[in-house]
Amino acid sequence: MLTNEETIAAIATPIGVGAISVIRVSGEESIQSVDPIFVGKKKLIEMNSHTIQYGKIVSESGDVIDDVLVSVFKNPNSYTGEDSVEISTHGSPLVCNNILARILKQNVRLAEPGEFTKRAFLNGKIDLSQAEAVIDVINSRTNASLKGARNQLDGVLSKKVDSLRESLVNSSSLIELELDFAEEDLEFVSLEKVKREIKNIIEEIEKLIDSYKIGKVIRDGVNVVFVGKPNVGKSSLLNYLVKESRAIVSHIPGTTRDVIREEVSIDGILFKLFDTAGIRITEDEIEKEGVLRSRKAVENADLVILLNDTNSEFPTDLYDEILHLTDKEKVIFVDNKIDLYKKILRENHFGISALTGEGVDKFLDHLKEKSFDSNSFSEKNAVVTNLRHKDALEKAREHLLKSIDSIDEKLSGEFISVDLRNAESSLGEIIGKVTTDDILNNIFSKFCIGK
Amino acid sequence: MLTNEETIAAIATPIGVGAISVIRVSGEESIQSVDPIFVGKKKLIEMNSHTIQYGKIVSESGDVIDDVLVSVFKNPNSYTGEDSVEISTHGSPLVCNNILARILKQNVRLAEPGEFTKRAFLNGKIDLSQAEAVIDVINSRTNASLKGARNQLDGVLSKKVDSLRESLVNSSSLIELELDFAEEDLEFVSLEKVKREIKNIIEEIEKLIDSYKIGKVIRDGVNVVFVGKPNVGKSSLLNYLVKESRAIVSHIPGTTRDVIREEVSIDGILFKLFDTAGIRITEDEIEKEGVLRSRKAVENADLVILLNDTNSEFPTDLYDEILHLTDKEKVIFVDNKIDLYKKILRENHFGISALTGEGVDKFLDHLKEKSFDSNSFSEKNAVVTNLRHKDALEKAREHLLKSIDSIDEKLSGEFISVDLRNAESSLGEIIGKVTTDDILNNIFSKFCIGK
Repeated sequence: MLTNEETIAAIATPIGVGAISVIRVSGEESIQSVDPIFVGKKKLIEMNSHTIQYGKIVSESGDVIDDVLVSVFKNPNSYTGEDSVEISTHGSPLVCNNILARILKQNVRLAEPGEFTKRAFLNGKIDLSQAEAVIDVINSRTNASLKGARNQLDGVLSKKVDSLRESLVNSSSLIELELDFAEEDLEFVSLEKVKREIKNIIEEIEKLIDSYKIGKVIRDGVNVVFVGKPNVGKSSLLNYLVKESRAIVSHIPGTTRDVIREEVSIDGILFKLFDTAGIRITEDEIEKEGVLRSRKAVENADLVILLNDTNSEFPTDLYDEILHLTDKEKVIFVDNKIDLYKKILRENHFGISALTGEGVDKFLDHLKEKSFDSNSFSEKNAVVTNLRHKDALEKAREHLLKSIDSIDEKLSGEFISVDLRNAESSLGEIIGKVTTDDILNNIFSKFCIGK
Repeated sequence: MLTNEETIAAIATPIGVGAISVIRVSGEESIQSVDPIFVGKKKLIEMNSHTIQYGKIVSESGDVIDDVLVSVFKNPNSYTGEDSVEISTHGSPLVCNNILARILKQNVRLAEPGEFTKRAFLNGKIDLSQAEAVIDVINSRTNASLKGARNQLDGVLSKKVDSLRESLVNSSSLIELELDFAEEDLEFVSLEKVKREIKNIIEEIEKLIDSYKIGKVIRDGVNVVFVGKPNVGKSSLLNYLVKESRAIVSHIPGTTRDVIREEVSIDGILFKLFDTAGIRITEDEIEKEGVLRSRKAVENADLVILLNDTNSEFPTDLYDEILHLTDKEKVIFVDNKIDLYKKILRENHFGISALTGEGVDKFLDHLKEKSFDSNSFSEKNAVVTNLRHKDALEKAREHLLKSIDSIDEKLSGEFISVDLRNAESSLGEIIGKVTTDDILNNIFSKFCIGK
């Protein structure tokens, strides 16, 4: 149990007008701090944990600021693991701010972004990957991303990582034990057996690393960039998809020269659709800016849709340009206006009509298939959705591969042991067994205040 | 205790991303409805009132939708007076909507706007004027309006109205008693004494009606419209005031031809500042629209600032136009640019410099004085802030004046009694002793869903 000297407070509900707002206070002195400004039937310090009392928050001159419900949580049974108070007020920004200001005069300071969750982590209520999942849950915009985040918050990834760490500790302990008795020249452990065990662990780690392909899609969605000559119907197709999905997640307006972005949810997956103006470098200064942005969009694309008019020549120049910016595998060829020209389709091209919707479903199925292998995704399995976790897993794999080299090269057990310990430490970074202030600050600064 | 067959639910916190969101469920079946979708240490029906339990809301297939804190309130000790459940979830719109959707499948329906507060009123937890104060508290944008609303929510107005009703009931009872014994020709009650009593009540009612002048300012703020020839510095003065107050409440953008509006809080009072383009009818179609809006603004103004250049002639034509639209008493003359021209001020004109700020404080003091007589406002006294209440008070006064006429005309006690009962009934409308579905629907439809 970490003792935090300071008691912190923040408005925890979204800012705005509503029925209820909640102010959160946490820390050793939280109950004592709120007590003098609260008038109810009994004092807050007399309340049991997980009980609620109706009362009033009063100003220094005794005027009622608002009538409230106050919930009391006693350590360790709270979100942060510390004594905590939650004050439920009328949902007015003014009321909230007045009460918060009143609390902040009680030797309580404003919480930093994510500080409640950081304390939950520091007090051992959740591990680091679970803390990171909290922000992902809050920011989820599709049900797939929510499920991925919930899965992580429920500790599925943590348990997997923990079991791998345990196996590593077993192996390295055996090797270290042998080192202790090295002079006696006894062989306690079959190195071949250790090697097999390490290879198993590497295999598991690689599965996790692979899951990031899906995890990234689940969490961040898929960037789909539309490229095509003018008048091939890029905007029409985009509009059709937006209308069809009936689930515009957001609309980011842009000028005609800008890269326009729409976000739609198709079968729970977030697709970010970018309409490019042109990707060929021109001399026009303003166009140049638009072209640079479009080229950037193609570079960052998960999938590029090369849209063409069924009746036109294949735009070889555009395709060449695309291949300078991204991989061939990412490009999908789509021929529009099949309602107008009944031609035989080019091979590997999807024929669609953005006007009638003909062929769009088949194209969408391919889009989903290309971006998300649903067969390899089970909600019950650990999925890595976070780049930090993937990086840590890759580091762990490096160390393990090195340990196998050490075994093969018949190096001293000390070398093998160091490699295994390093791998374990890399895995520990994921769940926060091994961490630095920098890592923590980087993670929690992305939170909102009040969480 | 009114029995509401239906259990209702709604998201009670402002919509948006935050740390916490709260979903409210109320009604006879609220606890039973949530129980099957909740997994915790114990069942919700086993929980005591005003206690909190950590657990999970699960989908039909048993997947975790979110981990939550569930608070249970048992009738009559809840906001609505009914059994209620509050579910505190992660502050994500998606999570909230998923949980709400899950609840709505449990024989629970979505609450109408204000329905929780309406039930609190119908179940006798608060009276009607207090229910109306709830929405005023939520919508308050300055501390003065918040205090007015809190005062009403705390029942200051209700108590006052109740005591007046009681006096009326006393008087009319006496008269009715006398009627019962009319044949015996006894005089139980001195009609002169009743008349004095009624006059006292009228006096109290008139004080309340008068308080609406302040109440309206407190609740809705003051409309200040700036009129002046081009280039006299209207925009500069407006900008100066906005900057000076350091409390822009909101900024409503408009085109140059529009009436631009800024809201600033000066000493806790909301001032709505309108900059008019011109108020003289022109032939230009587009200008005409702007002119009509400006004229409307002057008509609705609480105060009109006629701004002029110190160095220019007094704009008699503009002043005449203003007097066609509003009262002389509402106009304040302000001469700008006193930093440029050291001239002797015109009588009753405020000399200011929107550039240096010279003279602005004196002008502002006058503005505050004109719009808000702070001496006649005490937070402890009943203040009428609501037009509906003022109308009901005026109706009550009418009936009482009629009763005095009846006494003076020596009409039968029956007439007097009817007048007094009518007056009592008008007062009863304020606190909802007498009400209709129309009145209730009109009041609660202005609420947000979830309150």
